[in-house]
Amino acid sequence: MRKQQITLNCDMGESYGPWKMGDDEKIMPLIDMANIACGFHASDPKTMADTIQLAIQHNVKIGAHPSYPDIVGFGRRSLAMSSDEITYSVIYQVGALKAMCESFHSELSYIKPHGALYNDMIKDLTIFEAVVDAVSCFNLPLMMLSMPNIQTLLDIADRYEVPILFEAFADRAYLSDGSLAPRTVAGAILDDQDVIIEQIKKIVAGGNIRTLDGQSLTIEADTICVHGDNPQALRILRATRDALGGQR
Amino acid sequence: MRKQQITLNCDMGESYGPWKMGDDEKIMPLIDMANIACGFHASDPKTMADTIQLAIQHNVKIGAHPSYPDIVGFGRRSLAMSSDEITYSVIYQVGALKAMCESFHSELSYIKPHGALYNDMIKDLTIFEAVVDAVSCFNLPLMMLSMPNIQTLLDIADRYEVPILFEAFADRAYLSDGSLAPRTVAGAILDDQDVIIEQIKKIVAGGNIRTLDGQSLTIEADTICVHGDNPQALRILRATRDALGGQR
Amino acid sequence: MRKQQITLNCDMGESYGPWKMGDDEKIMPLIDMANIACGFHASDPKTMADTIQLAIQHNVKIGAHPSYPDIVGFGRRSLAMSSDEITYSVIYQVGALKAMCESFHSELSYIKPHGALYNDMIKDLTIFEAVVDAVSCFNLPLMMLSMPNIQTLLDIADRYEVPILFEAFADRAYLSDGSLAPRTVAGAILDDQDVIIEQIKKIVAGGNIRTLDGQSLTIEADTICVHGDNPQALRILRATRDALGGQR
Amino acid sequence: MRKQQITLNCDMGESYGPWKMGDDEKIMPLIDMANIACGFHASDPKTMADTIQLAIQHNVKIGAHPSYPDIVGFGRRSLAMSSDEITYSVIYQVGALKAMCESFHSELSYIKPHGALYNDMIKDLTIFEAVVDAVSCFNLPLMMLSMPNIQTLLDIADRYEVPILFEAFADRAYLSDGSLAPRTVAGAILDDQDVIIEQIKKIVAGGNIRTLDGQSLTIEADTICVHGDNPQALRILRATRDALGGQR
Repeated sequence: MRKQQITLNCDMGESYGPWKMGDDEKIMPLIDMANIACGFHASDPKTMADTIQLAIQHNVKIGAHPSYPDIVGFGRRSLAMSSDEITYSVIYQVGALKAMCESFHSELSYIKPHGALYNDMIKDLTIFEAVVDAVSCFNLPLMMLSMPNIQTLLDIADRYEVPILFEAFADRAYLSDGSLAPRTVAGAILDDQDVIIEQIKKIVAGGNIRTLDGQSLTIEADTICVHGDNPQALRILRATRDALGGQR
Repeated sequence: MRKQQITLNCDMGESYGPWKMGDDEKIMPLIDMANIACGFHASDPKTMADTIQLAIQHNVKIGAHPSYPDIVGFGRRSLAMSSDEITYSVIYQVGALKAMCESFHSELSYIKPHGALYNDMIKDLTIFEAVVDAVSCFNLPLMMLSMPNIQTLLDIADRYEVPILFEAFADRAYLSDGSLAPRTVAGAILDDQDVIIEQIKKIVAGGNIRTLDGQSLTIEADTICVHGDNPQALRILRATRDALGGQR
Repeated sequence: MRKQQITLNCDMGESYGPWKMGDDEKIMPLIDMANIACGFHASDPKTMADTIQLAIQHNVKIGAHPSYPDIVGFGRRSLAMSSDEITYSVIYQVGALKAMCESFHSELSYIKPHGALYNDMIKDLTIFEAVVDAVSCFNLPLMMLSMPNIQTLLDIADRYEVPILFEAFADRAYLSDGSLAPRTVAGAILDDQDVIIEQIKKIVAGGNIRTLDGQSLTIEADTICVHGDNPQALRILRATRDALGGQR
Repeated sequence: MRKQQITLNCDMGESYGPWKMGDDEKIMPLIDMANIACGFHASDPKTMADTIQLAIQHNVKIGAHPSYPDIVGFGRRSLAMSSDEITYSVIYQVGALKAMCESFHSELSYIKPHGALYNDMIKDLTIFEAVVDAVSCFNLPLMMLSMPNIQTLLDIADRYEVPILFEAFADRAYLSDGSLAPRTVAGAILDDQDVIIEQIKKIVAGGNIRTLDGQSLTIEADTICVHGDNPQALRILRATRDALGGQR
């Protein structure tokens, strides 16, 4: 009964100082796992504290969402950091969020890199190992894109004894190699609710989805990511919740 | 035998990216406690990691040295943060350093606010409570200036069950109210080695020191701070070490 | 015929990276002067360029809106900068915006400090002189709060040959000393459209407004500031436009 | 008589807040052109003002030294900015420095990108055009690496009517394609004074230098860059000055 086990995760706490992003208060009740920004691409200590409290209130698991240090670029621009810089930056960010969780008597459950770091690590073994090295310090699983042909990456994670949570995307188009179509490509971001729900149902059922380049692709996933920063996010989340078999 | 128990602490890890400050490698072997910057006034994740490893190597206790968020101003400029912003910023910084310590199988031993935050908290009960609130989340002592007439502050710390480490300064002149003379005042920073050693000896012996405004002042201290960011720091530290009774 | 001459100014370009603030596209056609953020409390080079182009398109005068360096705090927190630091920071910000205006064959028309710097400069002669010193480098007028009993400030501006544009606020409550009620005080921010329009009409007519502490106050103004970062901004701006005698 | 015309340029104003880098006071009298950091990889408004005044005092031409926004990485890490982001960021930085120069009754003479931006622009036409677009707004020449086979780049500069100042490096090893050996490669940074002087003399004489990969390379240059951030900088600069034919 795979279906019941698939969880919904969403990037949360992406406001920054006076600027709001996403409708965290309405989205939190609909998800299982909140990927909370750690101050390097979004969020500030006060926003992190507010988001943690909201997650606790709705019994949502908290994950750290570390990034390249690039607030104005929202962590979406690759930055040529050294391996050490990546490892220590991830430990720094995760540690900061972890302490804030503990100050509210809660805890971290997983780590999911954000944006360009998330994308770069599956293309570059050195970056992947730098991230895994950091994650291994926390005895937590790493959430990453479910893709074919990533045994080399999985071997690295094994070596550091880091468990993996495989993630699929509800609202992003895939390419036939199993990667996400880049945001800059037309059609990369799905915005038709029916298409999104259809993609989710196929992922949950273990079936094939159709890629942007017209192929067929099977995705195995532990969790599905839905983005909260678009106007239809709430409708899609509610529909997804239904597709997953109702209430949390 | 108070004398043997007094420790030397020093602000460390104050480099930033490509910029070096202080001679941490030479100073670390001479001190007991390293106050390590947490990235808000100095230090970056790589510098923090290097400094932690250096402290471990020399068996020096590690303290977190959180600050107002003001790198270009080195945390020396007061910033009108709200109480919540202070509390969460301190938890963020201390948590980041704590995780980095733990990644090297070490641990934090105390928390000492930096610069303007250190000074502001003893003048403003709201700021002090905001800091103490953050410190209480870590079950660690707060290091603060040893001053007369601070019972109100100590009551707040008691209420949060936060132990205090009282600190005296070897290389700063005092005013007769027990506060440090501001850095902008002539004579505030002691640079004559003999004067500094004399001040240390009096503090250790529990005697009276002479204040900048010509009064006499008794200071009770658990630890003495010596600054590492001046050319004579090494000579002073060695002399201080001798004055305290020789080798660490 | 004072009435026709009073202009409407509004803080613009307050988005930052991926975060949007204000509805600049709808507000720009309704105002005479756009105070554009310069990157120290909001805006980034791309946002500045977009906002400048929008102002040009609607024939709106462009003013520089420099701030304390404090993005996460949106420039609303006082920061204890030295006089030199303030002067050079203002020149830096204004110069950056000026070059961007010139790259679009436009120009700067005035300088209006933002947030805490705006408030602090009328309370502290040193800060005021530091700002005026910077403004004098650009041969532009300084926009500041219209207040009684500020002859000392005006003398400083005279000494630097900096002309003043006096500003009144449509949507902020005043205290009887002519200062704005702080944002943290209940009632400080006017949100009833009728109250706002009434305040504008009285200012334009040169009559007395009622202060938050129940007194009567005359305000002479060259320009009126309306904030764009609230939901009713557009309605208020349109009503204000009407109250000022119709179309721009 | 090419020899007399070659100038020496040096990166200056690379301190940041409390952190010092380089010995600007001693180097400034020995150079012809000061590339002053603009706050995105180093320098702050106060440091920029001090460095401008020092350049004026020694009659040294001032160039803007804009960078990717990456202070902790000192602008040495490539950042995947969009073309628009690069253009507007360069205008922002150059405009800020230009206004500061003008506030001291001085002026900018040229623009030289820093670090990773300097390197990336000669490898990527889109980045080069983004930089040239920004430079063209100031009617100033662009200083760039003298290289063979860059006609495509020069055509772009021509199209924007941007003159070029060709630069050679005294203390960096070249590869046979005319590019600089990356800093991470052994031998990339020359530190033997005799080798450096020899390289300078050959460049000035229009002769061939030996590349790190053992080839021979002719470099035509208008100006030679010597770095100030190493202990021997002063000795090398004095020797270079002599090699160029004595006093400035």
